[in-house]
Amino acid sequence: MNSLHQKIREEGTVIGHEILKVDSFLNHQLDIVFLDQVGREFYERFKDQKVDKILTVEVSGIAIAALAARYFKVPVVFAKKLKSKTLHEETYDAEVYSFTKKTTYQIKVSRKFLKEGERVLLIDDFLAKGQAALGLIEICRQAGVTVVGAGIVIEKDFQEGGRMLRDQGINVVSLARIGTMDETEIHFMEEGSI
Amino acid sequence: MNSLHQKIREEGTVIGHEILKVDSFLNHQLDIVFLDQVGREFYERFKDQKVDKILTVEVSGIAIAALAARYFKVPVVFAKKLKSKTLHEETYDAEVYSFTKKTTYQIKVSRKFLKEGERVLLIDDFLAKGQAALGLIEICRQAGVTVVGAGIVIEKDFQEGGRMLRDQGINVVSLARIGTMDETEIHFMEEGSI
Repeated sequence: MNSLHQKIREEGTVIGHEILKVDSFLNHQLDIVFLDQVGREFYERFKDQKVDKILTVEVSGIAIAALAARYFKVPVVFAKKLKSKTLHEETYDAEVYSFTKKTTYQIKVSRKFLKEGERVLLIDDFLAKGQAALGLIEICRQAGVTVVGAGIVIEKDFQEGGRMLRDQGINVVSLARIGTMDETEIHFMEEGSI
Repeated sequence: MNSLHQKIREEGTVIGHEILKVDSFLNHQLDIVFLDQVGREFYERFKDQKVDKILTVEVSGIAIAALAARYFKVPVVFAKKLKSKTLHEETYDAEVYSFTKKTTYQIKVSRKFLKEGERVLLIDDFLAKGQAALGLIEICRQAGVTVVGAGIVIEKDFQEGGRMLRDQGINVVSLARIGTMDETEIHFMEEGSI
């Protein structure tokens, strides 16, 4: 099986020291046979956690969350991104600052789809500065659900998101953790199992 | 097994005669166990078509496309929606008019991910006025790929999208076709097999 590290090295494009493009399998084209294995790996890592629901955020988290959820046999809820700051009685909301786009947007989840006491696994494609993940955690706090962990495909360990989540006691499982990268080399923090 | 018609009747909310909300299983919360069966049904309907790739459009098509693609063992490409009309050498582009939002947006697919001669299956959650599907077909035309069909979860038969696609010779397979609907009743055109 082609490992995730190998996949990133072979298909990823690094721009400068901070931007990694993985459009060929994760963010525009989706290599479903490979991502299904990623989804199964999240199941292996979290199957003992009694997961009731998987929470992600549109757009890039959805396919991974759906493929993982097949193994857990649980629903996915994806937070919707909105630019407008319209508060609704019927949603949980959090503000997310995008460093890439230098703008703040809102993420929202209908109150119907997160119930107090549920055990929720967060899934996302990337963890970098952690703003989207912190927004999801804020929504979980409002909803009174338990965050059993965060399953991340690619963590940029040289940015602060992972530390911020772990400092909050979140069990972060990143299948690939990039320590440093540039246009010639990607250095991973540890060898993952896929 | 819970049929799609039954699911729509039990969980859908009709507003007026034209809007159907299926947030509980298709557009915000995703009932993955159920949608996996939908994905398998698309495989059953199109497995003889030598599908090389599944093409959809963000956001709501992605989960369905990913779950279907697992059965076909092919990649998914999702077109990206952009408001700005910036043309790039490296993308295929189409304009899509949204009747709901009364605005025109662009959808784009990187030229890297559609290769001349490929056999492409379109997948989407809804077919109503057909604008998004026509945009995907235009992108396929630019790329020189063959559209082997369109797999739709819910078609609003009382709107013109299905007819427009079928008039172009597209093999449209809609798992639920709604003939008429209002707040008290949903009338389906035919019984689907799931």
